[in-house]
Amino acid sequence: MADRYDVAVIGTGPAGVSAAITAKVRNKSVLLLGSAAISEKVSKAHNIQNYPGLPDIPGAELAEKFREHLDQMGIEITDRKAVMIYAMGDFYSLQIDQDFVEATSVILATGVSFGKPLPGEDENLGRGVSYCATCDAALYRGREAVVVGYAPKEENDVRFLAELADKVTYIPVYKKEQMPAEVTELFPEFTNIEVKIAKPEAVEKREGRMVLITDQGEVISDGIFLLRESVAPDKLVPGLEMDGSHVKVDRKMASNLPGLFAAGDITGTPYQYIKAAGEGNVAALSAVAYIDNLK
Amino acid sequence: MADRYDVAVIGTGPAGVSAAITAKVRNKSVLLLGSAAISEKVSKAHNIQNYPGLPDIPGAELAEKFREHLDQMGIEITDRKAVMIYAMGDFYSLQIDQDFVEATSVILATGVSFGKPLPGEDENLGRGVSYCATCDAALYRGREAVVVGYAPKEENDVRFLAELADKVTYIPVYKKEQMPAEVTELFPEFTNIEVKIAKPEAVEKREGRMVLITDQGEVISDGIFLLRESVAPDKLVPGLEMDGSHVKVDRKMASNLPGLFAAGDITGTPYQYIKAAGEGNVAALSAVAYIDNLK
Repeated sequence: MADRYDVAVIGTGPAGVSAAITAKVRNKSVLLLGSAAISEKVSKAHNIQNYPGLPDIPGAELAEKFREHLDQMGIEITDRKAVMIYAMGDFYSLQIDQDFVEATSVILATGVSFGKPLPGEDENLGRGVSYCATCDAALYRGREAVVVGYAPKEENDVRFLAELADKVTYIPVYKKEQMPAEVTELFPEFTNIEVKIAKPEAVEKREGRMVLITDQGEVISDGIFLLRESVAPDKLVPGLEMDGSHVKVDRKMASNLPGLFAAGDITGTPYQYIKAAGEGNVAALSAVAYIDNLK
Repeated sequence: MADRYDVAVIGTGPAGVSAAITAKVRNKSVLLLGSAAISEKVSKAHNIQNYPGLPDIPGAELAEKFREHLDQMGIEITDRKAVMIYAMGDFYSLQIDQDFVEATSVILATGVSFGKPLPGEDENLGRGVSYCATCDAALYRGREAVVVGYAPKEENDVRFLAELADKVTYIPVYKKEQMPAEVTELFPEFTNIEVKIAKPEAVEKREGRMVLITDQGEVISDGIFLLRESVAPDKLVPGLEMDGSHVKVDRKMASNLPGLFAAGDITGTPYQYIKAAGEGNVAALSAVAYIDNLK
Protein backbone atom coordinates (compact mmCIF):
# COMPACT_ATOMS: atom_id res chain seq x y z
CA MET A 1 0.00 0.00 0.00
CA ALA A 2 1.10 3.55 -0.69
CA ASP A 3 2.21 5.81 2.14
CA ARG A 4 -0.78 8.08 1.80
CA TYR A 5 -3.66 7.76 -0.63
CA ASP A 6 -5.48 10.79 -1.98
CA VAL A 7 -8.84 9.13 -1.44
CA ALA A 8 -9.86 6.10 0.62
CA VAL A 9 -13.24 4.74 -0.46
CA ILE A 10 -14.92 2.43 2.05
CA GLY A 11 -17.47 0.14 0.43
CA THR A 12 -17.90 -1.55 -2.96
CA GLY A 13 -21.58 -0.98 -3.62
CA PRO A 14 -22.68 1.42 -6.39
CA ALA A 15 -21.69 4.47 -4.31
CA GLY A 16 -18.17 3.22 -3.56
CA VAL A 17 -17.58 1.95 -7.10
CA SER A 18 -18.78 5.23 -8.59
CA ALA A 19 -16.65 7.28 -6.18
CA ALA A 20 -13.53 5.23 -6.96
CA ILE A 21 -14.06 5.54 -10.73
CA THR A 22 -14.53 9.30 -10.67
CA ALA A 23 -11.60 9.86 -8.28
CA LYS A 24 -9.41 7.80 -10.62
CA VAL A 25 -10.65 9.72 -13.69
CA ARG A 26 -9.48 12.84 -11.84
CA ASN A 27 -6.02 11.32 -11.41
CA LYS A 28 -6.20 10.73 -7.69
CA SER A 29 -4.66 7.70 -5.99
CA VAL A 30 -7.48 5.56 -4.67
CA LEU A 31 -7.70 2.88 -1.99
CA LEU A 32 -10.97 0.99 -2.49
CA LEU A 33 -11.81 -1.16 0.54
CA GLY A 34 -14.65 -3.65 0.52
CA SER A 35 -15.93 -6.98 -0.70
CA ALA A 36 -14.12 -8.08 -3.86
CA ALA A 37 -17.40 -9.65 -4.92
CA ILE A 38 -19.08 -6.19 -4.89
CA SER A 39 -21.56 -5.49 -2.11
CA GLU A 40 -24.00 -8.34 -1.45
CA LYS A 41 -26.89 -5.94 -1.75
CA VAL A 42 -26.08 -5.58 -5.45
CA SER A 43 -24.83 -9.05 -6.35
CA LYS A 44 -27.77 -10.79 -4.68
CA ALA A 45 -30.44 -8.42 -5.98
CA HIS A 46 -33.10 -9.66 -8.35
CA ASN A 47 -33.65 -7.74 -11.55
CA ILE A 48 -33.08 -4.02 -11.25
CA GLN A 49 -35.50 -1.98 -13.36
CA ASN A 50 -34.31 1.56 -12.96
CA TYR A 51 -30.58 1.84 -13.50
CA PRO A 52 -30.79 3.99 -16.64
CA GLY A 53 -29.02 2.46 -19.61
CA LEU A 54 -29.04 -1.07 -18.19
CA PRO A 55 -32.71 -2.08 -18.27
CA ASP A 56 -33.98 -5.06 -16.30
CA ILE A 57 -30.53 -6.18 -15.22
CA PRO A 58 -29.97 -8.96 -12.65
CA GLY A 59 -28.01 -7.79 -9.63
CA ALA A 60 -25.23 -10.29 -10.29
CA GLU A 61 -24.83 -8.92 -13.82
CA LEU A 62 -24.69 -5.31 -12.61
CA ALA A 63 -22.06 -6.34 -10.05
CA GLU A 64 -20.09 -7.97 -12.88
CA LYS A 65 -20.33 -4.78 -14.95
CA PHE A 66 -19.09 -2.75 -11.98
CA ARG A 67 -16.16 -5.14 -11.60
CA GLU A 68 -15.32 -4.88 -15.31
CA HIS A 69 -15.47 -1.09 -15.11
CA LEU A 70 -13.05 -1.08 -12.17
CA ASP A 71 -10.77 -3.51 -14.05
CA GLN A 72 -10.73 -1.34 -17.17
CA MET A 73 -9.71 1.64 -15.08
CA GLY A 74 -7.04 -0.29 -13.20
CA ILE A 75 -8.76 0.07 -9.83
CA GLU A 76 -8.19 -2.83 -7.45
CA ILE A 77 -10.51 -3.79 -4.63
CA THR A 78 -8.70 -4.34 -1.34
CA ASP A 79 -10.87 -6.97 0.32
CA ARG A 80 -10.24 -5.91 3.91
CA LYS A 81 -12.23 -4.07 6.50
CA ALA A 82 -11.57 -0.66 7.99
CA VAL A 83 -12.22 -1.05 11.70
CA MET A 84 -11.53 2.52 12.77
CA ILE A 85 -10.98 5.80 10.96
CA TYR A 86 -9.37 8.68 12.82
CA ALA A 87 -9.39 12.34 11.75
CA MET A 88 -5.78 13.51 12.16
CA GLY A 89 -6.06 17.11 10.98
CA ASP A 90 -5.10 17.26 7.33
CA PHE A 91 -5.35 13.50 6.78
CA TYR A 92 -7.13 10.39 8.04
CA SER A 93 -5.61 7.32 9.64
CA LEU A 94 -7.43 4.09 8.78
CA GLN A 95 -7.00 1.01 10.90
CA ILE A 96 -7.37 -2.05 8.67
CA ASP A 97 -7.16 -5.13 10.84
CA GLN A 98 -3.80 -4.53 12.60
CA ASP A 99 -2.40 -2.23 9.90
CA PHE A 100 -2.68 1.51 9.50
CA VAL A 101 -2.88 3.42 6.24
CA GLU A 102 -3.33 7.11 5.59
CA ALA A 103 -5.58 9.01 3.23
CA THR A 104 -6.03 12.71 2.63
CA SER A 105 -9.77 12.25 2.22
CA VAL A 106 -12.25 9.49 2.96
CA ILE A 107 -15.52 8.54 1.29
CA LEU A 108 -17.80 6.38 3.44
CA ALA A 109 -20.04 4.18 1.32
CA THR A 110 -20.70 1.22 3.58
CA GLY A 111 -24.46 1.03 3.21
CA VAL A 112 -26.95 0.52 6.00
CA SER A 113 -26.48 -3.12 6.99
CA PHE A 114 -25.53 -2.15 10.54
CA GLY A 115 -28.18 -3.00 13.10
CA LYS A 116 -29.01 -1.37 16.38
CA PRO A 117 -26.40 -1.96 19.06
CA LEU A 118 -27.24 -4.48 21.78
CA PRO A 119 -28.08 -3.01 25.17
CA GLY A 120 -24.75 -2.59 26.99
CA GLU A 121 -22.72 -2.78 23.77
CA ASP A 122 -21.83 0.90 23.44
CA GLU A 123 -20.83 1.26 27.10
CA ASN A 124 -18.46 -1.71 26.93
CA LEU A 125 -16.92 -1.08 23.52
CA GLY A 126 -13.14 -1.33 23.96
CA ARG A 127 -13.68 -2.61 27.50
CA GLY A 128 -14.62 -6.21 26.81
CA VAL A 129 -16.56 -5.69 23.60
CA SER A 130 -14.63 -5.59 20.30
CA TYR A 131 -15.55 -5.40 16.62
CA CYS A 132 -12.26 -6.80 15.32
CA ALA A 133 -11.04 -10.30 16.15
CA THR A 134 -7.80 -10.04 14.17
CA CYS A 135 -6.96 -6.77 15.95
CA ASP A 136 -7.52 -8.00 19.49
CA ALA A 137 -6.87 -11.74 19.29
CA ALA A 138 -3.49 -11.46 20.98
CA LEU A 139 -5.19 -10.22 24.14
CA TYR A 140 -7.02 -13.56 24.43
CA ARG A 141 -4.06 -15.90 24.67
CA GLY A 142 -5.03 -18.44 27.30
CA ARG A 143 -8.39 -16.79 27.90
CA GLU A 144 -12.01 -17.28 26.83
CA ALA A 145 -13.89 -15.39 24.14
CA VAL A 146 -17.37 -15.27 22.71
CA VAL A 147 -17.81 -14.43 19.03
CA VAL A 148 -21.12 -13.37 17.51
CA GLY A 149 -20.81 -13.72 13.73
CA TYR A 150 -23.26 -12.04 11.38
CA ALA A 151 -21.88 -13.68 8.19
CA PRO A 152 -20.20 -17.01 7.36
CA LYS A 153 -16.90 -15.29 6.54
CA GLU A 154 -16.49 -14.51 10.25
CA GLU A 155 -15.79 -18.22 10.77
CA ASN A 156 -12.23 -17.48 9.68
CA ASP A 157 -11.82 -15.04 12.53
CA VAL A 158 -13.16 -17.68 14.93
CA ARG A 159 -10.43 -20.09 13.76
CA PHE A 160 -7.81 -17.37 14.14
CA LEU A 161 -8.96 -16.64 17.70
CA ALA A 162 -9.18 -20.32 18.61
CA GLU A 163 -5.49 -20.76 17.80
CA LEU A 164 -4.67 -18.45 20.71
CA ALA A 165 -7.60 -18.56 23.12
CA ASP A 166 -8.31 -21.38 25.53
CA LYS A 167 -11.91 -21.49 24.49
CA VAL A 168 -14.10 -19.77 21.91
CA THR A 169 -17.88 -19.85 21.96
CA TYR A 170 -19.22 -19.07 18.49
CA ILE A 171 -22.75 -17.81 18.01
CA PRO A 172 -23.61 -17.62 14.29
CA VAL A 173 -26.60 -15.38 13.65
CA TYR A 174 -26.87 -15.73 9.89
CA LYS A 175 -29.37 -17.74 7.93
CA LYS A 176 -29.70 -21.44 8.60
CA GLU A 177 -29.19 -22.49 4.94
CA GLN A 178 -25.63 -21.17 5.15
CA MET A 179 -24.83 -23.61 7.98
CA PRO A 180 -24.10 -27.36 7.97
CA ALA A 181 -26.92 -29.58 9.24
CA GLU A 182 -24.92 -30.22 12.40
CA VAL A 183 -23.39 -27.01 13.72
CA THR A 184 -20.76 -29.07 15.49
CA GLU A 185 -19.34 -29.80 12.03
CA LEU A 186 -18.44 -26.14 11.48
CA PHE A 187 -14.98 -26.42 13.01
CA PRO A 188 -14.03 -30.15 12.94
CA GLU A 189 -10.33 -29.36 13.41
CA PHE A 190 -10.84 -27.47 16.69
CA THR A 191 -11.74 -28.99 20.03
CA ASN A 192 -11.85 -25.63 21.83
CA ILE A 193 -14.65 -24.08 19.77
CA GLU A 194 -18.19 -24.51 20.94
CA VAL A 195 -20.94 -23.47 18.49
CA LYS A 196 -24.16 -22.32 20.09
CA ILE A 197 -27.39 -21.37 18.34
CA ALA A 198 -28.85 -18.46 20.24
CA LYS A 199 -30.14 -14.92 19.81
CA PRO A 200 -27.92 -12.32 21.50
CA GLU A 201 -29.97 -9.89 23.55
CA ALA A 202 -27.62 -7.83 25.69
CA VAL A 203 -24.08 -7.38 26.96
CA GLU A 204 -23.06 -6.88 30.57
CA LYS A 205 -19.86 -6.60 32.57
CA ARG A 206 -20.08 -8.56 35.81
CA GLU A 207 -17.23 -9.00 38.34
CA GLY A 208 -14.58 -8.28 35.69
CA ARG A 209 -15.96 -10.77 33.17
CA MET A 210 -18.18 -10.26 30.15
CA VAL A 211 -21.68 -11.67 30.02
CA LEU A 212 -23.54 -12.15 26.74
CA ILE A 213 -27.22 -12.54 27.52
CA THR A 214 -29.12 -14.61 24.94
CA ASP A 215 -32.56 -16.18 24.58
CA GLN A 216 -30.81 -19.47 25.50
CA GLY A 217 -29.21 -18.15 28.69
CA GLU A 218 -25.98 -16.37 29.57
CA VAL A 219 -22.52 -17.00 28.14
CA ILE A 220 -19.68 -15.79 30.34
CA SER A 221 -16.18 -15.07 28.97
CA ASP A 222 -13.27 -12.65 29.05
CA GLY A 223 -14.43 -10.78 25.98
CA ILE A 224 -17.15 -10.55 23.36
CA PHE A 225 -16.55 -10.04 19.64
CA LEU A 226 -19.48 -8.69 17.67
CA LEU A 227 -18.56 -9.22 14.00
CA ARG A 228 -21.11 -7.43 11.88
CA GLU A 229 -20.91 -6.69 8.16
CA SER A 230 -20.43 -3.05 9.03
CA VAL A 231 -20.49 -0.97 12.14
CA ALA A 232 -22.41 2.24 12.68
CA PRO A 233 -20.61 5.12 10.93
CA ASP A 234 -20.11 7.16 14.09
CA LYS A 235 -18.41 4.17 15.74
CA LEU A 236 -16.19 3.72 12.70
CA VAL A 237 -15.31 7.44 12.64
CA PRO A 238 -15.24 9.11 16.06
CA GLY A 239 -16.77 12.59 15.96
CA LEU A 240 -18.90 12.00 12.85
CA GLU A 241 -22.22 13.80 13.00
CA MET A 242 -25.27 11.64 12.35
CA ASP A 243 -28.86 12.34 11.37
CA GLY A 244 -30.62 9.44 13.05
CA SER A 245 -28.92 6.31 11.75
CA HIS A 246 -27.52 8.06 8.67
CA VAL A 247 -24.45 10.23 8.16
CA LYS A 248 -25.46 13.86 8.01
CA VAL A 249 -24.32 15.31 4.66
CA ASP A 250 -24.97 18.38 2.58
CA ARG A 251 -25.68 18.47 -1.16
CA LYS A 252 -21.94 18.12 -1.82
CA MET A 253 -21.96 14.92 0.29
CA ALA A 254 -19.72 16.58 2.88
CA SER A 255 -19.96 15.45 6.50
CA ASN A 256 -19.13 17.61 9.51
CA LEU A 257 -15.50 16.40 9.30
CA PRO A 258 -13.42 18.28 6.69
CA GLY A 259 -12.27 15.86 3.98
CA LEU A 260 -14.71 13.13 4.96
CA PHE A 261 -17.61 12.53 2.59
CA ALA A 262 -20.37 9.94 2.46
CA ALA A 263 -22.45 8.47 -0.35
CA GLY A 264 -25.18 5.90 -0.93
CA ASP A 265 -27.56 4.26 1.52
CA ILE A 266 -25.46 5.45 4.45
CA THR A 267 -26.66 9.02 3.77
CA GLY A 268 -30.34 8.15 3.84
CA THR A 269 -33.28 7.05 1.73
CA PRO A 270 -34.15 6.28 -1.00
CA TYR A 271 -32.05 3.12 -0.97
CA GLN A 272 -31.58 2.93 -4.74
CA TYR A 273 -28.63 1.85 -6.87
CA ILE A 274 -28.63 4.81 -9.23
CA LYS A 275 -29.04 7.31 -6.38
CA ALA A 276 -26.04 5.74 -4.67
CA ALA A 277 -23.96 5.83 -7.88
CA GLY A 278 -24.82 9.50 -8.37
CA GLU A 279 -23.85 10.37 -4.82
CA GLY A 280 -20.55 8.48 -5.15
CA ASN A 281 -19.71 10.70 -8.11
CA VAL A 282 -20.54 13.88 -6.21
CA ALA A 283 -18.59 12.73 -3.14
CA ALA A 284 -15.53 11.95 -5.29
CA LEU A 285 -15.57 15.36 -6.97
CA SER A 286 -15.98 17.02 -3.57
CA ALA A 287 -13.01 15.03 -2.29
CA VAL A 288 -10.98 16.06 -5.34
CA ALA A 289 -11.82 19.73 -4.72
CA TYR A 290 -10.93 19.33 -1.04
CA ILE A 291 -7.54 17.78 -1.88
CA ASP A 292 -6.74 20.40 -4.51
CA ASN A 293 -7.60 23.19 -2.07
CA LEU A 294 -5.18 21.83 0.53
CA LYS A 295 -2.22 22.41 -1.80
CA MET B 1 -52.68 13.23 -23.98
CA ALA B 2 -54.34 12.13 -20.77
CA ASP B 3 -56.42 14.57 -18.78
CA ARG B 4 -53.99 14.72 -15.93
CA TYR B 5 -50.66 12.96 -15.60
CA ASP B 6 -49.26 11.87 -12.27
CA VAL B 7 -45.82 13.15 -13.18
CA ALA B 8 -44.65 15.50 -15.93
CA VAL B 9 -40.92 15.20 -16.54
CA ILE B 10 -39.35 18.08 -18.44
CA GLY B 11 -36.11 17.12 -20.14
CA THR B 12 -34.64 13.98 -21.69
CA GLY B 13 -31.10 14.07 -20.37
CA PRO B 14 -29.97 11.49 -17.78
CA ALA B 15 -31.99 13.17 -15.02
CA GLY B 16 -35.25 13.23 -16.98
CA VAL B 17 -34.80 9.71 -18.35
CA SER B 18 -34.02 8.37 -14.87
CA ALA B 19 -36.99 10.19 -13.33
CA ALA B 20 -39.38 8.88 -15.98
CA ILE B 21 -38.15 5.30 -15.57
CA THR B 22 -38.49 5.29 -11.79
CA ALA B 23 -41.91 6.99 -11.86
CA LYS B 24 -43.08 4.35 -14.34
CA VAL B 25 -41.67 1.52 -12.20
CA ARG B 26 -43.80 2.96 -9.39
CA ASN B 27 -46.88 2.73 -11.61
CA LYS B 28 -47.38 6.43 -12.16
CA SER B 29 -48.57 7.91 -15.44
CA VAL B 30 -45.70 9.87 -16.95
CA LEU B 31 -45.50 12.65 -19.52
CA LEU B 32 -41.89 12.91 -20.69
CA LEU B 33 -41.26 16.13 -22.62
CA GLY B 34 -38.04 16.79 -24.46
CA SER B 35 -35.86 16.03 -27.43
CA ALA B 36 -36.69 12.60 -28.88
CA ALA B 37 -33.01 12.32 -29.72
CA ILE B 38 -32.14 12.53 -25.99
CA SER B 39 -30.49 15.72 -24.78
CA GLU B 40 -27.72 16.99 -27.05
CA LYS B 41 -25.39 17.20 -24.09
CA VAL B 42 -25.48 13.40 -23.91
CA SER B 43 -25.76 12.41 -27.55
CA LYS B 44 -22.94 14.72 -28.65
CA ALA B 45 -20.62 13.91 -25.77
CA HIS B 46 -17.32 12.18 -26.42
CA ASN B 47 -16.52 9.08 -24.42
CA ILE B 48 -17.90 9.09 -20.90
CA GLN B 49 -15.54 7.45 -18.41
CA ASN B 50 -17.48 7.44 -15.19
CA TYR B 51 -21.02 6.14 -15.69
CA PRO B 52 -20.59 3.02 -13.54
CA GLY B 53 -21.36 -0.20 -15.41
CA LEU B 54 -20.91 1.36 -18.85
CA PRO B 55 -17.18 2.07 -19.06
CA ASP B 56 -15.75 4.38 -21.71
CA ILE B 57 -19.05 4.79 -23.54
CA PRO B 58 -19.53 7.30 -26.38
CA GLY B 59 -22.30 9.79 -25.65
CA ALA B 60 -24.29 8.69 -28.69
CA GLU B 61 -24.22 5.11 -27.43
CA LEU B 62 -25.34 6.10 -23.92
CA ALA B 63 -28.19 8.10 -25.49
CA GLU B 64 -29.14 5.00 -27.50
CA LYS B 65 -29.14 2.89 -24.33
CA PHE B 66 -31.36 5.45 -22.61
CA ARG B 67 -33.76 5.33 -25.58
CA GLU B 68 -33.83 1.52 -25.48
CA HIS B 69 -34.50 1.57 -21.75
CA LEU B 70 -37.44 3.95 -22.25
CA ASP B 71 -38.72 1.75 -25.09
CA GLN B 72 -38.55 -1.39 -22.98
CA MET B 73 -40.59 0.31 -20.28
CA GLY B 74 -43.12 1.68 -22.75
CA ILE B 75 -42.26 5.31 -22.04
CA GLU B 76 -42.69 7.66 -25.00
CA ILE B 77 -40.89 10.93 -25.45
CA THR B 78 -43.18 13.80 -26.38
CA ASP B 79 -40.92 15.98 -28.50
CA ARG B 80 -42.49 19.31 -27.60
CA LYS B 81 -41.48 22.18 -25.38
CA ALA B 82 -43.14 23.36 -22.20
CA VAL B 83 -43.23 27.14 -22.44
CA MET B 84 -44.87 27.90 -19.10
CA ILE B 85 -45.68 25.89 -16.00
CA TYR B 86 -48.21 27.25 -13.53
CA ALA B 87 -48.73 26.04 -9.95
CA MET B 88 -52.52 25.66 -9.57
CA GLY B 89 -52.71 24.41 -5.98
CA ASP B 90 -52.92 20.62 -6.06
CA PHE B 91 -51.80 20.31 -9.66
CA TYR B 92 -49.71 22.03 -12.33
CA SER B 93 -50.85 23.41 -15.67
CA LEU B 94 -48.26 23.10 -18.41
CA GLN B 95 -48.47 25.20 -21.53
CA ILE B 96 -47.03 23.22 -24.44
CA ASP B 97 -47.04 25.44 -27.50
CA GLN B 98 -50.75 26.44 -27.63
CA ASP B 99 -51.99 23.42 -25.66
CA PHE B 100 -52.43 22.94 -21.95
CA VAL B 101 -51.95 19.70 -20.04
CA GLU B 102 -52.16 19.00 -16.34
CA ALA B 103 -49.91 17.06 -14.00
CA THR B 104 -50.09 16.40 -10.29
CA SER B 105 -46.35 16.78 -9.95
CA VAL B 106 -43.57 18.13 -12.11
CA ILE B 107 -39.89 17.23 -12.35
CA LEU B 108 -37.71 19.88 -13.98
CA ALA B 109 -34.68 18.36 -15.66
CA THR B 110 -33.92 20.83 -18.41
CA GLY B 111 -30.22 21.25 -17.81
CA VAL B 112 -28.31 24.52 -17.79
CA SER B 113 -28.17 25.52 -21.44
CA PHE B 114 -30.04 28.75 -20.77
CA GLY B 115 -27.86 31.82 -21.03
CA LYS B 116 -28.04 35.15 -19.30
CA PRO B 117 -30.98 37.28 -20.41
CA LEU B 118 -30.21 40.22 -22.70
CA PRO B 119 -30.42 43.66 -21.11
CA GLY B 120 -34.06 44.72 -21.42
CA GLU B 121 -35.30 41.15 -22.01
CA ASP B 122 -36.85 40.51 -18.59
CA GLU B 123 -38.65 43.87 -18.48
CA ASN B 124 -40.27 43.33 -21.88
CA LEU B 125 -41.16 39.64 -21.56
CA GLY B 126 -44.81 39.31 -22.63
CA ARG B 127 -44.76 42.93 -23.79
CA GLY B 128 -42.98 42.58 -27.09
CA VAL B 129 -40.54 39.83 -26.14
CA SER B 130 -41.71 36.21 -26.44
CA TYR B 131 -40.10 32.79 -26.04
CA CYS B 132 -42.69 30.90 -28.09
CA ALA B 133 -43.29 31.59 -31.78
CA THR B 134 -46.03 28.98 -32.20
CA CYS B 135 -47.90 30.44 -29.18
CA ASP B 136 -47.85 34.05 -30.29
CA ALA B 137 -47.63 33.86 -34.08
CA ALA B 138 -51.29 34.80 -34.53
CA LEU B 139 -50.58 38.20 -32.99
CA TYR B 140 -48.19 38.99 -35.85
CA ARG B 141 -50.58 38.70 -38.76
CA GLY B 142 -49.68 41.57 -41.07
CA ARG B 143 -46.95 42.80 -38.78
CA GLU B 144 -43.17 42.51 -38.46
CA ALA B 145 -41.20 40.21 -36.20
CA VAL B 146 -37.58 39.51 -35.33
CA VAL B 147 -36.57 35.98 -34.41
CA VAL B 148 -33.31 35.13 -32.66
CA GLY B 149 -32.74 31.38 -33.03
CA TYR B 150 -30.25 29.51 -30.85
CA ALA B 151 -30.55 26.19 -32.73
CA PRO B 152 -31.29 25.15 -36.34
CA LYS B 153 -34.64 23.62 -35.37
CA GLU B 154 -35.97 27.14 -34.71
CA GLU B 155 -35.96 27.64 -38.48
CA ASN B 156 -39.30 25.80 -38.51
CA ASP B 157 -40.80 28.43 -36.23
CA VAL B 158 -39.46 31.12 -38.52
CA ARG B 159 -41.34 29.54 -41.46
CA PHE B 160 -44.48 29.27 -39.37
CA LEU B 161 -44.28 32.94 -38.41
CA ALA B 162 -43.50 34.03 -41.99
CA GLU B 163 -46.76 32.49 -43.20
CA LEU B 164 -48.62 35.07 -41.11
CA ALA B 165 -46.33 38.03 -40.62
CA ASP B 166 -45.56 40.63 -43.25
CA LYS B 167 -41.88 40.37 -42.58
CA VAL B 168 -39.60 38.24 -40.40
CA THR B 169 -35.98 39.07 -39.71
CA TYR B 170 -34.15 35.94 -38.63
CA ILE B 171 -30.93 36.13 -36.65
CA PRO B 172 -29.36 32.66 -36.26
CA VAL B 173 -26.84 32.57 -33.43
CA TYR B 174 -25.72 28.95 -33.73
CA LYS B 175 -22.49 27.64 -35.16
CA LYS B 176 -21.54 28.50 -38.73
CA GLU B 177 -21.07 24.87 -39.86
CA GLN B 178 -24.78 24.29 -39.31
CA MET B 179 -25.64 26.97 -41.86
CA PRO B 180 -25.53 26.98 -45.67
CA ALA B 181 -22.67 28.90 -47.23
CA GLU B 182 -25.11 31.60 -48.31
CA VAL B 183 -27.50 32.44 -45.48
CA THR B 184 -29.97 33.72 -48.09
CA GLU B 185 -30.45 30.08 -49.06
CA LEU B 186 -31.95 29.19 -45.66
CA PHE B 187 -35.53 29.98 -46.70
CA PRO B 188 -35.63 29.87 -50.52
CA GLU B 189 -39.43 29.54 -50.52
CA PHE B 190 -40.03 32.78 -48.60
CA THR B 191 -39.54 36.30 -49.91
CA ASN B 192 -40.52 37.94 -46.63
CA ILE B 193 -37.73 36.43 -44.50
CA GLU B 194 -34.49 38.31 -44.16
CA VAL B 195 -31.59 36.46 -42.57
CA LYS B 196 -29.09 38.64 -40.78
CA ILE B 197 -25.83 37.55 -39.16
CA ALA B 198 -25.43 39.61 -36.01
CA LYS B 199 -24.85 39.30 -32.29
CA PRO B 200 -27.87 40.40 -30.22
CA GLU B 201 -26.83 42.73 -27.42
CA ALA B 202 -29.97 44.24 -25.90
CA VAL B 203 -33.71 44.73 -26.24
CA GLU B 204 -35.56 48.04 -25.98
CA LYS B 205 -39.09 49.33 -26.41
CA ARG B 206 -39.17 52.61 -28.29
CA GLU B 207 -42.31 54.52 -29.34
CA GLY B 208 -44.41 51.36 -29.17
CA ARG B 209 -42.07 49.28 -31.29
CA MET B 210 -39.43 46.77 -30.32
CA VAL B 211 -35.75 47.41 -30.94
CA LEU B 212 -33.18 44.61 -31.01
CA ILE B 213 -29.76 46.14 -30.62
CA THR B 214 -26.97 44.10 -32.24
CA ASP B 215 -23.30 44.51 -33.04
CA GLN B 216 -24.48 45.19 -36.63
CA GLY B 217 -26.94 47.90 -35.70
CA GLU B 218 -30.59 48.03 -34.64
CA VAL B 219 -33.46 45.95 -35.98
CA ILE B 220 -36.90 47.47 -35.41
CA SER B 221 -40.09 45.40 -35.44
CA ASP B 222 -43.39 44.76 -33.67
CA GLY B 223 -42.03 41.92 -31.58
CA ILE B 224 -38.91 39.93 -30.77
CA PHE B 225 -38.81 36.15 -30.38
CA LEU B 226 -35.88 34.78 -28.43
CA LEU B 227 -35.88 31.02 -29.11
CA ARG B 228 -33.39 29.37 -26.82
CA GLU B 229 -32.96 25.68 -26.11
CA SER B 230 -34.39 26.28 -22.67
CA VAL B 231 -35.39 29.25 -20.62
CA ALA B 232 -34.37 30.04 -17.07
CA PRO B 233 -36.32 27.84 -14.63
CA ASP B 234 -37.89 30.72 -12.76
CA LYS B 235 -39.23 32.12 -16.04
CA LEU B 236 -40.65 28.72 -16.94
CA VAL B 237 -42.25 28.33 -13.50
CA PRO B 238 -43.37 31.58 -11.88
CA GLY B 239 -42.61 31.65 -8.16
CA LEU B 240 -39.82 29.08 -8.29
CA GLU B 241 -37.04 29.82 -5.82
CA MET B 242 -33.55 29.91 -7.28
CA ASP B 243 -30.06 29.65 -5.84
CA GLY B 244 -28.13 31.78 -8.31
CA SER B 245 -28.83 30.29 -11.73
CA HIS B 246 -29.89 26.91 -10.31
CA VAL B 247 -33.18 25.70 -8.83
CA LYS B 248 -32.92 25.60 -5.06
CA VAL B 249 -33.60 22.04 -3.87
CA ASP B 250 -33.16 20.02 -0.72
CA ARG B 251 -31.71 16.49 -0.48
CA LYS B 252 -35.07 15.08 -1.63
CA MET B 253 -34.86 17.28 -4.76
CA ALA B 254 -37.88 19.28 -3.60
CA SER B 255 -38.17 22.93 -4.67
CA ASN B 256 -40.05 25.61 -2.74
CA LEU B 257 -43.22 24.70 -4.69
CA PRO B 258 -45.05 21.65 -3.29
CA GLY B 259 -45.10 18.87 -5.90
CA LEU B 260 -42.39 20.44 -8.04
CA PHE B 261 -39.00 18.75 -8.01
CA ALA B 262 -35.80 19.30 -9.97
CA ALA B 263 -32.91 17.04 -10.95
CA GLY B 264 -29.68 17.14 -12.89
CA ASP B 265 -27.57 20.09 -13.99
CA ILE B 266 -30.44 22.47 -13.28
CA THR B 267 -29.89 21.90 -9.53
CA GLY B 268 -26.18 22.76 -9.60
CA THR B 269 -22.71 21.36 -10.06
CA PRO B 270 -21.15 18.91 -10.63
CA TYR B 271 -22.52 18.63 -14.17
CA GLN B 272 -22.14 14.86 -14.43
CA TYR B 273 -24.29 12.20 -16.11
CA ILE B 274 -24.39 9.78 -13.21
CA LYS B 275 -25.11 12.54 -10.68
CA ALA B 276 -28.02 13.66 -12.86
CA ALA B 277 -29.36 10.10 -13.19
CA GLY B 278 -29.19 9.63 -9.43
CA GLU B 279 -31.04 12.87 -8.79
CA GLY B 280 -33.74 11.95 -11.31
CA ASN B 281 -34.38 8.80 -9.34
CA VAL B 282 -34.64 10.68 -6.05
CA ALA B 283 -36.91 13.34 -7.59
CA ALA B 284 -39.22 10.64 -8.99
CA LEU B 285 -39.53 8.87 -5.65
CA SER B 286 -40.20 12.19 -3.93
CA ALA B 287 -42.90 12.92 -6.53
CA VAL B 288 -44.42 9.48 -5.93
CA ALA B 289 -44.49 10.10 -2.17
CA TYR B 290 -46.04 13.54 -2.77
CA ILE B 291 -48.77 12.09 -5.00
CA ASP B 292 -49.52 9.25 -2.60
CA ASN B 293 -49.80 11.69 0.30
CA LEU B 294 -52.39 13.79 -1.54
CA LYS B 295 -54.85 10.89 -1.57
